[in-house]
Amino acid sequence: MGRQKVYLDKLARFFQIRNLLLRQALAECLGTFILVMFGCGAVAQLVLSSGSHGMFLTVNFAFGFAATLGILVCGQVSGGHLNPAVTFALCLLGRERWRKFPMYFLFQTIGAFFGAAVIFGMYYDALWDHPGCFNVTGPTATAGIFATYPGKHLTLVNGFFDQIIGTAALIVCILAIVDPYNNPIPQGLEAFTVGFVVLVIGLSMGFNSGYAVNPARDLGPRLFTAMAGWGVEVFTVRNGWFLVPIFAPFLGTIIGVMIYQLMVGFHVEGEVRDQKEGTEQENVRLTNVHSNDNSKEATKEMH
Amino acid sequence: MGRQKVYLDKLARFFQIRNLLLRQALAECLGTFILVMFGCGAVAQLVLSSGSHGMFLTVNFAFGFAATLGILVCGQVSGGHLNPAVTFALCLLGRERWRKFPMYFLFQTIGAFFGAAVIFGMYYDALWDHPGCFNVTGPTATAGIFATYPGKHLTLVNGFFDQIIGTAALIVCILAIVDPYNNPIPQGLEAFTVGFVVLVIGLSMGFNSGYAVNPARDLGPRLFTAMAGWGVEVFTVRNGWFLVPIFAPFLGTIIGVMIYQLMVGFHVEGEVRDQKEGTEQENVRLTNVHSNDNSKEATKEMH
Amino acid sequence: MGRQKVYLDKLARFFQIRNLLLRQALAECLGTFILVMFGCGAVAQLVLSSGSHGMFLTVNFAFGFAATLGILVCGQVSGGHLNPAVTFALCLLGRERWRKFPMYFLFQTIGAFFGAAVIFGMYYDALWDHPGCFNVTGPTATAGIFATYPGKHLTLVNGFFDQIIGTAALIVCILAIVDPYNNPIPQGLEAFTVGFVVLVIGLSMGFNSGYAVNPARDLGPRLFTAMAGWGVEVFTVRNGWFLVPIFAPFLGTIIGVMIYQLMVGFHVEGEVRDQKEGTEQENVRLTNVHSNDNSKEATKEMH
Amino acid sequence: MGRQKVYLDKLARFFQIRNLLLRQALAECLGTFILVMFGCGAVAQLVLSSGSHGMFLTVNFAFGFAATLGILVCGQVSGGHLNPAVTFALCLLGRERWRKFPMYFLFQTIGAFFGAAVIFGMYYDALWDHPGCFNVTGPTATAGIFATYPGKHLTLVNGFFDQIIGTAALIVCILAIVDPYNNPIPQGLEAFTVGFVVLVIGLSMGFNSGYAVNPARDLGPRLFTAMAGWGVEVFTVRNGWFLVPIFAPFLGTIIGVMIYQLMVGFHVEGEVRDQKEGTEQENVRLTNVHSNDNSKEATKEMH
Repeated sequence: MGRQKVYLDKLARFFQIRNLLLRQALAECLGTFILVMFGCGAVAQLVLSSGSHGMFLTVNFAFGFAATLGILVCGQVSGGHLNPAVTFALCLLGRERWRKFPMYFLFQTIGAFFGAAVIFGMYYDALWDHPGCFNVTGPTATAGIFATYPGKHLTLVNGFFDQIIGTAALIVCILAIVDPYNNPIPQGLEAFTVGFVVLVIGLSMGFNSGYAVNPARDLGPRLFTAMAGWGVEVFTVRNGWFLVPIFAPFLGTIIGVMIYQLMVGFHVEGEVRDQKEGTEQENVRLTNVHSNDNSKEATKEMH
Repeated sequence: MGRQKVYLDKLARFFQIRNLLLRQALAECLGTFILVMFGCGAVAQLVLSSGSHGMFLTVNFAFGFAATLGILVCGQVSGGHLNPAVTFALCLLGRERWRKFPMYFLFQTIGAFFGAAVIFGMYYDALWDHPGCFNVTGPTATAGIFATYPGKHLTLVNGFFDQIIGTAALIVCILAIVDPYNNPIPQGLEAFTVGFVVLVIGLSMGFNSGYAVNPARDLGPRLFTAMAGWGVEVFTVRNGWFLVPIFAPFLGTIIGVMIYQLMVGFHVEGEVRDQKEGTEQENVRLTNVHSNDNSKEATKEMH
Repeated sequence: MGRQKVYLDKLARFFQIRNLLLRQALAECLGTFILVMFGCGAVAQLVLSSGSHGMFLTVNFAFGFAATLGILVCGQVSGGHLNPAVTFALCLLGRERWRKFPMYFLFQTIGAFFGAAVIFGMYYDALWDHPGCFNVTGPTATAGIFATYPGKHLTLVNGFFDQIIGTAALIVCILAIVDPYNNPIPQGLEAFTVGFVVLVIGLSMGFNSGYAVNPARDLGPRLFTAMAGWGVEVFTVRNGWFLVPIFAPFLGTIIGVMIYQLMVGFHVEGEVRDQKEGTEQENVRLTNVHSNDNSKEATKEMH
Repeated sequence: MGRQKVYLDKLARFFQIRNLLLRQALAECLGTFILVMFGCGAVAQLVLSSGSHGMFLTVNFAFGFAATLGILVCGQVSGGHLNPAVTFALCLLGRERWRKFPMYFLFQTIGAFFGAAVIFGMYYDALWDHPGCFNVTGPTATAGIFATYPGKHLTLVNGFFDQIIGTAALIVCILAIVDPYNNPIPQGLEAFTVGFVVLVIGLSMGFNSGYAVNPARDLGPRLFTAMAGWGVEVFTVRNGWFLVPIFAPFLGTIIGVMIYQLMVGFHVEGEVRDQKEGTEQENVRLTNVHSNDNSKEATKEMH
């Protein structure tokens, strides 16, 4: 056992990365990898088993709890965003530095890419066994396992609106959960609560186009499918639908931040500030009184 | 980043509301908005996908966890009632002031109204694509996405009884959860527990008329549907059914408060009072003894 | 508000019960009422909606979370047993007094009786609307909403074994959760964990005869159905099946207590005792040493 | 009651085992017993009821929450591994001694064996009532209730890969949950979180061959079925498939440990070490300074 400890210690020192941003980006990568692996895995199980081993509810559960697990894995290191929209929201509010945003976006997308790749490998036989093995459209399409595609009833405008609402709802709930002035849940349960948010969004906002509400979760797997055999059609289908889950979430983030801040955030924060400033003024007044005393004493002593 | 902070601070100061009741009402509005948006969204997903993307269980989950999230968003500010019946129960027990009741009721209804509106916008295409797009009754009716309507088997009397029982069950559980003398759960988990209450009510009391058990959750979306195209029929159908989920919950609240207080509440509270009064009497006795000593000493000194 | 407080205080004093056992029995009654109301409500919803508003999973969820809520409501007062088998287990281990057992059993059965009654009232119209409205057997039977009946494949011997295993599994898990020497979960989460136990038992042991594993939960509703219109057949059907869920659980309790104590309980408890006795012996030794010193000193002083 | 206490105390002393490793192995045995009893019970309920009392989701829930309960029962004594792959991972990282590994593996397999046996007894009638009562293959096969068998689409290579990925995912999540340098969840919730991990793996990785990801959980019940009537075919079917869930998980464990340590673990651990070493160096420096002072003082005193 002694020898093993020495060897493990050597390994640990050799592979340790000391650059904080890179470590955080790697953690985000692993977290998003877990989110997409479990989430898309559940869609694959539903689609490839033709419903015998899954249903839409299981996909909702999988994405929700996968978000929880992803956050748990990387949350202590990187904050556990798993979603460029969340990073964007925290940058908007000045709680994260803007330079984190492109780095996180990149590594989240990479993690999502590899998450999709693992599921592709895992269900490789099942995919070939499935009637429409590499179809992007049609009733036996399998591209929807990895990236999101709009339902037949959905226009581009409504789809854009759908992604904006979904992301705004996500952001409002996440801001409430992590608001330092409005701490509604015990320390350490944030990951579970965010998982419930993702679950509920899937239960109620998943019918239109599969609730991406996350540019990295959609772009990474879509890139993978383009390379793995579904081809460039994953980008061209439905007049460039792929742009919607990339851009709409950021717009939704802005709206979500505004709604939460206007209806709850500013007032809670302001109350704390008011109390602090009140105390400070009180202190100033007291200090003045005290210094008056001092000056009196000083003048006394002068005499 | 420095500039952003300054700008954010200015915004925060500009939009800060200092009136406590208004802030609380706004928070209730946002909480009920979230409850109805996610809850009715799940019904919409079930109805409009004709069951492919949902089932009654997903609606139960959505309403349960939506209640949790709604309470988390506003609970620290307003208590997270989301339901005029809950506000009524707390007023009855003297834990909230009566003047809060109309204000909360109004803003909860407004929140529910806009929650329904967002879902209407989100599923606009899907609604037009659905066979019975603006029907209030019949097998393809869509009005039930937003407000509740009784099942075919249900008479008005049984429906009234159904809403009374459902609300009474809700109130008994909520009173147990928030009873200051009977603290059964760790601080900060109240929202999750209330979510489970709403979930269980949906699992076991949802068949008759869809478990509104909340006047605001039903009235707000019903007003919206009346304006959005379903017309005045949403009020006239089934001999004015819409009055049942408005009035029965308050009656159920009274019964729930009575059951909980008579079977658990009064005794737990009384025990604490007995101990307190016991200690006080003990103190009085001790003080008397002490004062006797004093008087003895005093008389001693007199001699 | 002042007046309301006075009135509420008067009410509280008037209805306060000071007898501890009666208060505990009342709390058990309310807890079991909630368990059966929600649990049987879910079965009613499943049966009467012919599967459109429920499935076996929803019944499992309902019984699980209903157990959680029942325990939350009464746990601080009475311990939240909700089940004579649990009371029996704790009496066996010397953690509750035996005289509690008949009292709890009685009030748990009364609570279950009224829980069934409320569900009967709530789904009265739906029941009359259902094809086999008051059948005890056959494919449209409704008696199974309230009490449990064996599946067609089940013999009496296997049914007895089924109830023994189910209760033993329940008791092993509950003992682990509440073992004072093996505290595996944070204070206040016992109710939730027991809910999961009930849920899992339903998921894996519910096919034979509906997992009563609780004499009160089965007897109370069965008495109610006998009186409410299903008649004496609820007792006579399948050669007196009704005796199985009354007696088998107690046998299962004994087996469960033995398994847990032999495999985990005795050793954990013994370790704590060993440490305590070790410390005591150490103290005795130290005291002896000290007294030796004293005696030495005493003898010194004697000289 | 006094007499009962004496008798219980005697029993406790008689059966107490003082050998730590044996006590831990017994606890693991009970934990794995609970895992397999509830998990395989849910599969039995699904298969034998032909889907009326279960679906794949209920199996996922049952295995997930059964893992939670198994860990709760034995976690304080043995760590609650329930899975030789988990023991292997902790041995690899030097957190458990290697000699625990064969002992745990043996007792976990024994627990799984008896868990399967109890379910066999419980559903004995239902099994005989089922069309393919002792078939290992074919559409009515029942061997899959106890051990895992590959889907028709699955080749041995892909099945091996499937078990590697599943176990790696399990290990990454468990390592994050129990990492002493990355404590993401409150004390006491580890069991629940691991339950969610098992649930999610079932939701997304269960279609290929039923997500054993645990050599003991698969081998124990398979041995039981070989003895109980399914015969030696449970080992020979599909070219010795039974070896895959025994060996692939250990390979997956190595990969999972590597991924977690390289992407999160080493850096978190390293940070703590850096801080500690930094403090130590600082202390050394301070001590030097201090000793310099001392030496100065010493030299002063010399003069």
